[in-house]
Amino acid sequence: MADAALTDALMDGKVAALARAVSIVENGREGFEELLANLHPKLGKARRIGITGPPGAGKSTLTERLVTAYRSQGHRVAVVAVDPTSPFTGGALLGDRIRMESVALDPGVYIRSMATRGSLGGLATATREVCDVLDAAGYDRILVETVGVGQSELDVTRMADSTVLVLVPESGDGIQTLKSGVIEAADLFVVNKADRPGADKLRRELEMSLDLRTGKAARVPAHHGALRSGSTPKIATAVDPTVWRPPVLVTTASRSEGIGTVLEALEQHWTWLGTTGTLELRRRTRLAQRTREVVERAMRRWLWQDSHADEMIAARLDDVTAGKTSPYDLASEIVTALKEGARV
Amino acid sequence: MADAALTDALMDGKVAALARAVSIVENGREGFEELLANLHPKLGKARRIGITGPPGAGKSTLTERLVTAYRSQGHRVAVVAVDPTSPFTGGALLGDRIRMESVALDPGVYIRSMATRGSLGGLATATREVCDVLDAAGYDRILVETVGVGQSELDVTRMADSTVLVLVPESGDGIQTLKSGVIEAADLFVVNKADRPGADKLRRELEMSLDLRTGKAARVPAHHGALRSGSTPKIATAVDPTVWRPPVLVTTASRSEGIGTVLEALEQHWTWLGTTGTLELRRRTRLAQRTREVVERAMRRWLWQDSHADEMIAARLDDVTAGKTSPYDLASEIVTALKEGARV
Repeated sequence: MADAALTDALMDGKVAALARAVSIVENGREGFEELLANLHPKLGKARRIGITGPPGAGKSTLTERLVTAYRSQGHRVAVVAVDPTSPFTGGALLGDRIRMESVALDPGVYIRSMATRGSLGGLATATREVCDVLDAAGYDRILVETVGVGQSELDVTRMADSTVLVLVPESGDGIQTLKSGVIEAADLFVVNKADRPGADKLRRELEMSLDLRTGKAARVPAHHGALRSGSTPKIATAVDPTVWRPPVLVTTASRSEGIGTVLEALEQHWTWLGTTGTLELRRRTRLAQRTREVVERAMRRWLWQDSHADEMIAARLDDVTAGKTSPYDLASEIVTALKEGARV
Repeated sequence: MADAALTDALMDGKVAALARAVSIVENGREGFEELLANLHPKLGKARRIGITGPPGAGKSTLTERLVTAYRSQGHRVAVVAVDPTSPFTGGALLGDRIRMESVALDPGVYIRSMATRGSLGGLATATREVCDVLDAAGYDRILVETVGVGQSELDVTRMADSTVLVLVPESGDGIQTLKSGVIEAADLFVVNKADRPGADKLRRELEMSLDLRTGKAARVPAHHGALRSGSTPKIATAVDPTVWRPPVLVTTASRSEGIGTVLEALEQHWTWLGTTGTLELRRRTRLAQRTREVVERAMRRWLWQDSHADEMIAARLDDVTAGKTSPYDLASEIVTALKEGARV
């Protein structure tokens, strides 16, 4: 099937075209960039929602409940589960996928797990590109669940219109130690498994962190010392409509409790994104980042597929091993040769 | 301090020079590649031992015990703890570091945590480069502990002469699901926390996996179907000295039980590495990989620091946002422009 025909079939909702297009893009097969370039002007209808949090927080169950709710509203829903993580905990993922099968039989639902991508492209980029395919194919809600732990969460949230951070009461002890960037990246907090002890304590701690953040943004330049010494500043309660204060919601996803409040908060966030121009800004930033990633990938392809860099390394490896030259000197030679040969 | 002077001071064992060199290399500061190039011919004395495994396996405790044991043998020991992971579990790392402080006061021990490195270089590469500095500074045992979970384990093991995979009895349920590459990457298995139930069961399961691996290597091409159907092939028991069969050891590191067997196995592995030529081969492969990483980093530096790629993206971002061009077409333009301008 030619690229244009595949694009058309995909946009017509043909199931086979979708499977083919996702496979081409996920695996970076011949023509995947042309396909994505063709799709680019048709994108933007889907809302992309990132769902992240530590292992065991119940992300998959929450995701499944959200899928069911969106389906009952008539939306077509895609779930992309990202699992870039532990070689040691492969078991958990399988469990998650099996549970998700309750919605997987619905033809209005598409579920895909992403694991790793070959040496030339990163997993985060591949995930974003698969989301593009799903967007073009008419899935208007795309839930991206990061099963793993790590930098990948932050990478994935960077592609989402709305990011949900799912925590559990047990996370309470660690809330002070959440690395910078995590609290900031969340648009919604969900305290899941709220039937366990400590849920309300965690909720209050999160609200307090958010108070501090708001207070910090407004006051730290003037009162930095006072805040650091542990005093609790009085927070202005006037609502500034241009600032999104992430709500802290409480759910027990396994019993479908609290799902409605999450949906509602996502709806409010979506409205806020639109009315403040934040959506446009986020998507613009995302496109700049995507372009950077694609440029890097193209450079790596040039380097390792179209140049003689690997042969040059092989030819000089004896010298490197013998200490006659270093990897750094050799790399410098190779880059110079690449630049000089670029016009050939 | 000039590069050569820093190199000399480092090799003379000057503490200040070590701190300075590690900091330069870890942060990729001005001159770090020249420094590493200077050190390159002096490397190779240290044994690099990777210690990896799932969270909670007791890696830090085992590492600490190994440090103590190596110290009592008169070695200088460095520990590099890699924590590329969860924004959600930052707390655990701190706990590990505090425990390790019992050996950190010993001037013959150097401990360093690695977290993230800037956009141009990866954490795995930075870790290997810090190990080079430690090797040059005369630490003859370098233990690299991956606190995190993820691809990083496999990346880190690729730099080690010997890789120890630490598991706990609770890992037993997941042994079937260990992703491919993990079993293969381990030179030694340690079942730690052996005072808990299930330790012997896990040990037997690991031995069985290793039996299968040995059997597989010898027979799968001929009897693939039979093996897949679940039969247990009879394993040849003759010892082939060119093949390393990873021992499965049992420890309770918190009570210092079994540490001697780990040390002994590491010693045997080291001897095996040397007599079979595997050490030379591994280090050669590692140098080729290092060179590839350094070339990629140099290319990224060219791209994002010395070229106008970012300005080109900014200038065309309106068109990308409006769907007039795609990130892919723009990336292609940029790479073409880079290649054409490379000689300027």
